[in-house]
Amino acid sequence: MRTPTVVPATVTPVASMPERVTIYEVGPRDGLQNEKALVPTEVKAEFVRRLLAAGLPVVEATSFVHPRWVPQLADAAELMGLLGAAGRDCPVLVPNERGLDRALELGVRHIAIFGSATETFAQKNLNRSLDEQFAMFEPTVRRAREHGLDVRAYVSMCFGDPWEGPVPVAQVVEVGKRLFDLGASQLSLGDTIGVGTAGHVSALVRAFVEAGMGTDQLAMHFHDTYGQALANTYAALQSGITTYDASAGGLGGCPYAKSATGNLATEDLVWMLRGLGIETGVELEEVAAASVWMAGHLGRPSPSAVVRALAPASAGDAAGGAAQSGA
Amino acid sequence: MRTPTVVPATVTPVASMPERVTIYEVGPRDGLQNEKALVPTEVKAEFVRRLLAAGLPVVEATSFVHPRWVPQLADAAELMGLLGAAGRDCPVLVPNERGLDRALELGVRHIAIFGSATETFAQKNLNRSLDEQFAMFEPTVRRAREHGLDVRAYVSMCFGDPWEGPVPVAQVVEVGKRLFDLGASQLSLGDTIGVGTAGHVSALVRAFVEAGMGTDQLAMHFHDTYGQALANTYAALQSGITTYDASAGGLGGCPYAKSATGNLATEDLVWMLRGLGIETGVELEEVAAASVWMAGHLGRPSPSAVVRALAPASAGDAAGGAAQSGA
Repeated sequence: MRTPTVVPATVTPVASMPERVTIYEVGPRDGLQNEKALVPTEVKAEFVRRLLAAGLPVVEATSFVHPRWVPQLADAAELMGLLGAAGRDCPVLVPNERGLDRALELGVRHIAIFGSATETFAQKNLNRSLDEQFAMFEPTVRRAREHGLDVRAYVSMCFGDPWEGPVPVAQVVEVGKRLFDLGASQLSLGDTIGVGTAGHVSALVRAFVEAGMGTDQLAMHFHDTYGQALANTYAALQSGITTYDASAGGLGGCPYAKSATGNLATEDLVWMLRGLGIETGVELEEVAAASVWMAGHLGRPSPSAVVRALAPASAGDAAGGAAQSGA
Repeated sequence: MRTPTVVPATVTPVASMPERVTIYEVGPRDGLQNEKALVPTEVKAEFVRRLLAAGLPVVEATSFVHPRWVPQLADAAELMGLLGAAGRDCPVLVPNERGLDRALELGVRHIAIFGSATETFAQKNLNRSLDEQFAMFEPTVRRAREHGLDVRAYVSMCFGDPWEGPVPVAQVVEVGKRLFDLGASQLSLGDTIGVGTAGHVSALVRAFVEAGMGTDQLAMHFHDTYGQALANTYAALQSGITTYDASAGGLGGCPYAKSATGNLATEDLVWMLRGLGIETGVELEEVAAASVWMAGHLGRPSPSAVVRALAPASAGDAAGGAAQSGA
């Protein structure tokens, strides 16, 4: 069977699901920092504008990490300048106080910090122990809060860690609790290597709730490395989670690269939510168009299933389905 | 973050899920019939043998459809001959009485027929009306049953149809009921174009159960065209379905081809089931190895996320994760 013209998914309201969820768009930051191509700053700005215009309520714009580590986002200040007022509500990633200083100068109102749920990844990514990361975050978060900024805390390796294997839920809850104690207003629980499965998701959310934290303080950040991102999202929806990170067009992941982070594609998420009758305020076709446009700049197709399926068929695909094929 | 070495998914037993499911492997038939490359018969035979050796309990081997429609499977009889005793329990697709005659000659014990849930696809695929398809199946199923054969009935377009749009669940239940009445022992409910979402799956299964059919008589056949296949599987598991069609390595779907059917990859399914603590009897690494081997014969990488993630990293990926990257 060839892929047909667009068919709207049947809207089937499902009991005990949220009526509305917030998609936290990470494509311009988490996506582009993992792409090899260096994208011109004006293209990044236009990408952010198109995502906002498509109805995405939160678009993380860039990262004030040192260019030595992430050369792809070395133009963070320039990008924020280009975005102007449109970028004022866009969160930016801030690794430390120096990054915070730059964000404050530019009038940023929402920042995100990036912590680890495991000892080994804290060492590898932050060159600090698990305990030391909190000491590093403390002045950044305190000063951000003093300036009235909102602080989101990413927690990486919440399900599995390449060096430590499966990560105990109690350990993730402990790390999360310490980040809330520092002053974070939201956690983004990341399955950084994509190994988690649906039952694990339910167990992790349950552990947070049992420890006194609310589902409204938690976001889920799934990677599709092992194809599990949407199934995990469905389990999280059933657990009452209402904020999901996703990357337009699946930016940051390439189907054929081992280095793929495999971010959940915004379009694939919106397709499912639309089918479940859950509101997002996002115009699917507009996000997909922005992703196709960005894919053109990156010089390769989008890894999002929905983006590929919605794209106009090429001439070679114009023939009808095979007769009697059992396709 | 680069993809790490294999990390076993955490086994988290989930209440109200089946303890065991049957994976019905469709790669050699549904997968290969949608691949452009013509695969030598001996390679197909070896593929079936490897899948059986990997613990897959049911492997649909081929189709006795007319070679004019599916030239890829024109070697059906030769394949069954090569498989010998190993192929005796492998189901084969049989479109009509002529196909049944060939299957009977070869000692086949399980056949599958291929019906449509919609009027338009019945016309396009079978050149018959929805009603006429039952008349066409009747003598095939009756004679198969008289010979003691088991008959599975595929039902295509159970969620959406490229020409008719969303398909009412009542219509699918009615078609399914008529196929049971003819003598089918199992239905495989296909989301042929991959547009279905999780709530729709729950609603469809509920409708079958309310109409008096058991979840043990139903199999789900999801396509990943819009990225929904595993989320839909998770919903079906919660509805009590215990048989799932899947294609080793995602055969039959190519990430960058509009003509992709996007079969759910067996490996991605097994990964989730393993994480949920649901037994399948399937050795994940062995299926993945068979898929990599077949991908070599097809001359392109497997579209399965798990197959790609499990593949050894190339030299270019040997570097560690980026420091302080917020990956």
